[in-house]
Amino acid sequence: MRDMYDACHIAVPARDLDEAVEYYVFGLGVKLARRYADRVTFDFFGDQLVCHLCEDVPEEAIAYPRHFGVSFAKAEDFDRLVKLVETRKLKTLSGPSLRFEGTAEQHRTLFLVDPSNNVIEFKNYDDPRLQF
Amino acid sequence: MRDMYDACHIAVPARDLDEAVEYYVFGLGVKLARRYADRVTFDFFGDQLVCHLCEDVPEEAIAYPRHFGVSFAKAEDFDRLVKLVETRKLKTLSGPSLRFEGTAEQHRTLFLVDPSNNVIEFKNYDDPRLQF
Amino acid sequence: MRDMYDACHIAVPARDLDEAVEYYVFGLGVKLARRYADRVTFDFFGDQLVCHLCEDVPEEAIAYPRHFGVSFAKAEDFDRLVKLVETRKLKTLSGPSLRFEGTAEQHRTLFLVDPSNNVIEFKNYDDPRLQF
Amino acid sequence: MRDMYDACHIAVPARDLDEAVEYYVFGLGVKLARRYADRVTFDFFGDQLVCHLCEDVPEEAIAYPRHFGVSFAKAEDFDRLVKLVETRKLKTLSGPSLRFEGTAEQHRTLFLVDPSNNVIEFKNYDDPRLQF
Amino acid sequence: MRDMYDACHIAVPARDLDEAVEYYVFGLGVKLARRYADRVTFDFFGDQLVCHLCEDVPEEAIAYPRHFGVSFAKAEDFDRLVKLVETRKLKTLSGPSLRFEGTAEQHRTLFLVDPSNNVIEFKNYDDPRLQF
Amino acid sequence: MRDMYDACHIAVPARDLDEAVEYYVFGLGVKLARRYADRVTFDFFGDQLVCHLCEDVPEEAIAYPRHFGVSFAKAEDFDRLVKLVETRKLKTLSGPSLRFEGTAEQHRTLFLVDPSNNVIEFKNYDDPRLQF
Amino acid sequence: MRDMYDACHIAVPARDLDEAVEYYVFGLGVKLARRYADRVTFDFFGDQLVCHLCEDVPEEAIAYPRHFGVSFAKAEDFDRLVKLVETRKLKTLSGPSLRFEGTAEQHRTLFLVDPSNNVIEFKNYDDPRLQF
Amino acid sequence: MRDMYDACHIAVPARDLDEAVEYYVFGLGVKLARRYADRVTFDFFGDQLVCHLCEDVPEEAIAYPRHFGVSFAKAEDFDRLVKLVETRKLKTLSGPSLRFEGTAEQHRTLFLVDPSNNVIEFKNYDDPRLQF
Repeated sequence: MRDMYDACHIAVPARDLDEAVEYYVFGLGVKLARRYADRVTFDFFGDQLVCHLCEDVPEEAIAYPRHFGVSFAKAEDFDRLVKLVETRKLKTLSGPSLRFEGTAEQHRTLFLVDPSNNVIEFKNYDDPRLQF
Repeated sequence: MRDMYDACHIAVPARDLDEAVEYYVFGLGVKLARRYADRVTFDFFGDQLVCHLCEDVPEEAIAYPRHFGVSFAKAEDFDRLVKLVETRKLKTLSGPSLRFEGTAEQHRTLFLVDPSNNVIEFKNYDDPRLQF
Repeated sequence: MRDMYDACHIAVPARDLDEAVEYYVFGLGVKLARRYADRVTFDFFGDQLVCHLCEDVPEEAIAYPRHFGVSFAKAEDFDRLVKLVETRKLKTLSGPSLRFEGTAEQHRTLFLVDPSNNVIEFKNYDDPRLQF
Repeated sequence: MRDMYDACHIAVPARDLDEAVEYYVFGLGVKLARRYADRVTFDFFGDQLVCHLCEDVPEEAIAYPRHFGVSFAKAEDFDRLVKLVETRKLKTLSGPSLRFEGTAEQHRTLFLVDPSNNVIEFKNYDDPRLQF
Repeated sequence: MRDMYDACHIAVPARDLDEAVEYYVFGLGVKLARRYADRVTFDFFGDQLVCHLCEDVPEEAIAYPRHFGVSFAKAEDFDRLVKLVETRKLKTLSGPSLRFEGTAEQHRTLFLVDPSNNVIEFKNYDDPRLQF
Repeated sequence: MRDMYDACHIAVPARDLDEAVEYYVFGLGVKLARRYADRVTFDFFGDQLVCHLCEDVPEEAIAYPRHFGVSFAKAEDFDRLVKLVETRKLKTLSGPSLRFEGTAEQHRTLFLVDPSNNVIEFKNYDDPRLQF
Repeated sequence: MRDMYDACHIAVPARDLDEAVEYYVFGLGVKLARRYADRVTFDFFGDQLVCHLCEDVPEEAIAYPRHFGVSFAKAEDFDRLVKLVETRKLKTLSGPSLRFEGTAEQHRTLFLVDPSNNVIEFKNYDDPRLQF
Repeated sequence: MRDMYDACHIAVPARDLDEAVEYYVFGLGVKLARRYADRVTFDFFGDQLVCHLCEDVPEEAIAYPRHFGVSFAKAEDFDRLVKLVETRKLKTLSGPSLRFEGTAEQHRTLFLVDPSNNVIEFKNYDDPRLQF
């Protein structure tokens, strides 16, 4: 468990801030907190995501080693995310699929890609105690 | 505010897993959750950090655009982190310093560097409502 | 005390949605949740504010009987709001001032006005038990 | 999520305070907090509703753009409200009905009218993350 | 909702303190907090019950107007209490039964009697919002 | 600690319901939840107090063995109650005073009397762990 | 209920610290917090377990009187633990089985043994109120 | 942080159950939950302590490797415990003293001894994040 008043902070590059707002707010359904000339900040599932304007973004989306996202404690929250991705036809990199099948740390996973080829992963562990 | 049962998920490269454990557990004081041949997972201030074994890590630490960390709601939690960094002589990239001074979003910040040149930022906003 | 998972819902008219976004997000520091052709929705201090595009907005701001806002349980949260209003030079209608002075329900209050002449009130009761 | 110690504040006109108490306390089941010569305050689902005595109330109830209410995170809480409205035969303006059907922000909604023609909306989003 | 750190305080007469401990701790399953020559205090479902040694206790148990107990928000907690009463064969005054049937404030109720003829009521409202 | 969704339930006699409402709502600042011909229910500091209409109320207020009230975990909440009692000139039976002085269970206490001679006690233990 | 910010503290002997880490982290799935020459500390289901290096450990595992573990409030958390024990083939001393069957304090229990013959018990009471 | 609905479970030997009740309830101020012929269970600071009747208890109190207790997140809770120990003249084994001085994991500690020579440790870390 984590402190609900703190925020995890994630900063990634974005080649275009309007595009980032379009994707995160109108696609993923996260909230726009602030916008500056060179960056935009989001309330990303309760944590802080900052997209910094940057010409140098990956040419293609590669899942490992860099990505970020949310591990939902409740299966229904993962289901809702999957449904939103389908309804809004967001681009997926892989999944939803099952990983570490048959082990205690078995979990469902879904990889998305933002317009700057940042990779986002959503997960749901059968046993939320093992989501760390 | 965020759900205290979910976990934010961050994945970064590490050139050496022992080195990552040494830095994160015995340096920053985060907890080791699991370890595999190719990755190690941490309970990083209540969220999940995964270090993936990877030969291709940055040659030097560059603060922008990629970094991750924690925005503490309470000033005393930021103070404790600063004190731990001093006591354990962890390598800093910059700070602690004050940013956006004189504005509503004024905050203290401290940048650290892990052994694989991943950049970590800790923050504390005067007004935690603006930490997103 | 209220359920932290529910949201209070407030809908008001706005003569211009861009103006509303400018005021609420970049002025008051609330978060933009969604935007449609005829409305924009905000995460307003944890509750839902919807500004509906509407030609018929008040010609001038009148404090009573219609307004909405937040009653902060902690004095420091009211102080932070007052400071943000000063720093960002937001237009006030009256206050900060003290009301019901000398009674058990004594509280500080500050009235703001949005670009469509909707009135917003922030309060802080000496005894938060009486904030209802 | 919102702070459970703060209260959202909503002020509306009422042509008669006894009538307001009758409707809100004995109809909707909210709690009477305080009463003055010119106003009455309620603990409205954990937030503060104030009805100000005012001769100038709307001649008829119009749903947009002004209304207020609650967005319930749990479906069962919306169901209970619907049941109470039926049991106590409270006057509805429209619904319960489904809005934004087939989209990620699909939700159930119910519009009520108080004795001074203030419009009250109760909602329940399929995905509570989108209730803002 | 109530503050979870505060405690409601209830004081009642007891003709014999050993008997009170026997009933409350080994019967109802509440916890013994402290004991003095003239009183014993219990952690009664999270609140404080004090039984004061007193010769003058009621000759018979009368449900109204004086009694105390717990209104459970969740049906399963009421079910568990009913089961404990059956399993441990605690003396009931009436119920479990349904009251205010068909109204919004419909609830289940169970009346017990302690050895000093104090009446204890457990309740569960269909709509916990109306349990006040 | 107690469950914040449940409510402790206390029922006492009242010789006159208007008088009870006057005292509890406009005096003590608790909230009126419902009223019937023979009873009135209050949200009493988050718990449920019911005053049953009853001709047989005590002729005078006697502190022991029957009374009810709140044990505040925080000193400032007790201070606020004391201040409200002074400001609104509510009738006290005894206190504020210190009890069990010099012992681990030392606490401040204040006894009030309602119009039907029911005794109400507010407390604040130096060590809230011992408030049971 | 317990304070979620405090930690229960349990210290036991371990004949070999590597073995302890292997068992607790890679077996039971608890988190490694810190390690010293003579001890290792774990975040054991949210509480602090310390294994002190010690030559004198029990020759065999004996369930009573010394053991420690977790009493889960929710049945599903006990189920998950049982499943992890099966999946990872952790050594059990007895159970899962039912104890105090037919009484109010009926509960499921499972006894494990760590490499230093410390006994660990996991439980789930039908009525979590009686888990103390 | 830990789940506030679960309970940590600790079982230790006691040579005499009355003596255990005397020490834990009337000494340390924990609550008696249940008592059987061969054991007594306590709500020990929100967790479950069980004292099993056992002839074989340690002849003298030895601090390491076996002990149990509480690590308080707040300094004032440790202070209160120290004060209670002084006021009630409970037997101490060592402390209150400071350990790991000058390091990030610096903490205050106090060792007590129960009548069966079980050792109890209370702690307070300067940085509660490191209390695991």
